[in-house]
Amino acid sequence: MSELRSIPIILLGLGGVGRALVEQILSRRAYHARRYGIRLDIVAVCDSTGAAVAPQGLSDADLQQALAHKAAGGQLADLPFGYYQSQVQHVVDLEATAQTIVVDVTASPATYDALRVAQERGASIVLANKLPLTGPIEQARPLLRYPRLRYETTVGAAVPVITTTKRLAAGGERIDRIQGVLSGTLGYLMTAVEQGVAFSKAVLQAKKMGYTEPDPREDLSGRDVARKALILARTLGWDLEMSDIPVASLFPEEWASWSVEEFLSELSALDDDFYAWRDTARARHEALRYIADIREGQVKVGLEFVPLDSPLGRLRGSDNLVAFYTEYYAEHPLVLQGRGAGVHATAAGVLSDILELALFPLVL
Amino acid sequence: MSELRSIPIILLGLGGVGRALVEQILSRRAYHARRYGIRLDIVAVCDSTGAAVAPQGLSDADLQQALAHKAAGGQLADLPFGYYQSQVQHVVDLEATAQTIVVDVTASPATYDALRVAQERGASIVLANKLPLTGPIEQARPLLRYPRLRYETTVGAAVPVITTTKRLAAGGERIDRIQGVLSGTLGYLMTAVEQGVAFSKAVLQAKKMGYTEPDPREDLSGRDVARKALILARTLGWDLEMSDIPVASLFPEEWASWSVEEFLSELSALDDDFYAWRDTARARHEALRYIADIREGQVKVGLEFVPLDSPLGRLRGSDNLVAFYTEYYAEHPLVLQGRGAGVHATAAGVLSDILELALFPLVL
Repeated sequence: MSELRSIPIILLGLGGVGRALVEQILSRRAYHARRYGIRLDIVAVCDSTGAAVAPQGLSDADLQQALAHKAAGGQLADLPFGYYQSQVQHVVDLEATAQTIVVDVTASPATYDALRVAQERGASIVLANKLPLTGPIEQARPLLRYPRLRYETTVGAAVPVITTTKRLAAGGERIDRIQGVLSGTLGYLMTAVEQGVAFSKAVLQAKKMGYTEPDPREDLSGRDVARKALILARTLGWDLEMSDIPVASLFPEEWASWSVEEFLSELSALDDDFYAWRDTARARHEALRYIADIREGQVKVGLEFVPLDSPLGRLRGSDNLVAFYTEYYAEHPLVLQGRGAGVHATAAGVLSDILELALFPLVL
Repeated sequence: MSELRSIPIILLGLGGVGRALVEQILSRRAYHARRYGIRLDIVAVCDSTGAAVAPQGLSDADLQQALAHKAAGGQLADLPFGYYQSQVQHVVDLEATAQTIVVDVTASPATYDALRVAQERGASIVLANKLPLTGPIEQARPLLRYPRLRYETTVGAAVPVITTTKRLAAGGERIDRIQGVLSGTLGYLMTAVEQGVAFSKAVLQAKKMGYTEPDPREDLSGRDVARKALILARTLGWDLEMSDIPVASLFPEEWASWSVEEFLSELSALDDDFYAWRDTARARHEALRYIADIREGQVKVGLEFVPLDSPLGRLRGSDNLVAFYTEYYAEHPLVLQGRGAGVHATAAGVLSDILELALFPLVL
């Protein structure tokens, strides 16, 4: 199989998404060879403790061992072939060439400098990590303008929200509004409230089913939705900052400092508000949704009433949905819908980004 | 503005989509310069009679004159700067370089050789024309495998159906089924029938509103839907031919040879069938849809009953809708919806394809 084109991959992060990605890469080796004549070679994996590096590609056995070790709560620096405290920036500095694809599936702000090194080398970059794109615009802009960057899964997992936004923005048609339900957790909660479930009970149930972060305030604060909305707005070319986005949290500000247990025990104090909002929605023949609303150069995030007979009003359950209202998709928007989270769907979206870059090489 | 990067465009076809595209290119010049530092220079336009060619780019005045002349029913060969009977192949042969983007917005099988010349030169290619991709697989395959080909608008106008299919196929996850309503006309007719309108009356109304081709049999035969389904299947890597696709026409085969007038006058003979199908659908709590169904290596096209509570069942009116059921989008599919036709939406999708290729140059 010497005729396969090798694509060196540097993987930053070996949490749930990273491990799912490595598994997908290994299990699709034969397919990628047969159909595209390429082989994705993972030359380095990094976590916050260290790295495992092999310039000719880590062996499948070593990768499997790293996956098992990480899944069991271990760290890369402990591995026999791991390097202690190799910072990601050094790894990228040592290993990245213009042929490399650097893949960031961490949720860390600490990868930024490594990504810029990759960019200087002319390497390709794939982000599932939102943070490099949601910091100050001066930091995010050079990445966003880099033609060899893909970041589809930062919004809506494998649902092609970013690709679509980029395509619309590139053509240049007027984009009147992008309206989205960008949190499966909040979508699930709104559907439960609509069905008459007490808000507090719905949150506890969602937490039990693993739909929320360990601290549900991560979801209920709306900050993660705001980050996604910011990425969409910046993809349109708008120079907004996180601080420009009004974010309506679903709980009172003073609860932010409580322990998770205190927070959960007080949650039922919000139930009556949600019952009242649900009743208002019903009386108005509308639906209650937690929405990111992007229009006229501004972004806002919070609860809104939307017409029952609109794409967002018809949505049920935990799917994400994004409606693009544009010059040529005016009364009837262009709508994308699907699961917007989960390690496997996210890893699949990252893999699509990798292939898109791998199959469009610099020199044919 | 000498620092702008010029992108030479050779445009094949100056019908409705071609003219809308030229208008969009001209009106977005300032935007493309400011945001991307590029200028789309149309170096040649061709119709079936001839071509207008200017290696440094046709002037805006000449382009405007060509648009007005074509809109009034004229031909390019008549223009003072037009060349009589320059075949598209010769134009591409003379003008295309690796920097060129050749854009085919004809509905003609005659562009195929010109496209292959463009490919040999390493030029980029954008197709709104389905025919180069729906002929014998031996002819379509080399184009489909060409990394610098884009053909988003061959299915669903600017709705990113092809992009999404390519992304899913490239990653390599299991794709269980793609189910789509790929004809706005047939979607409109099914909604009307569902609402109790006689089929024949709905067809006449759709024709009056310009929703159908001048000969509505073009829509009602299902052949155009089959072509789109074939393109989707081939994008998945399946080597099917048009003749492999069972296509259920909405009218009896023997009516194909009649005049349009005869056909329309007999159409009410089909009304009772549609009333009966509608009643069956209602009794089964299902919806009647004209569907392209792509699964297990096979494609079929025709009327089907689908659950009311499915993405296709919930669809109303003339939007296209495609549902992807995959390994990671299993019970809840990934769904794309939006207007799938119209010269402006199609031209916008072609322009997005052009920008995608222009912004991902061979050498950064």
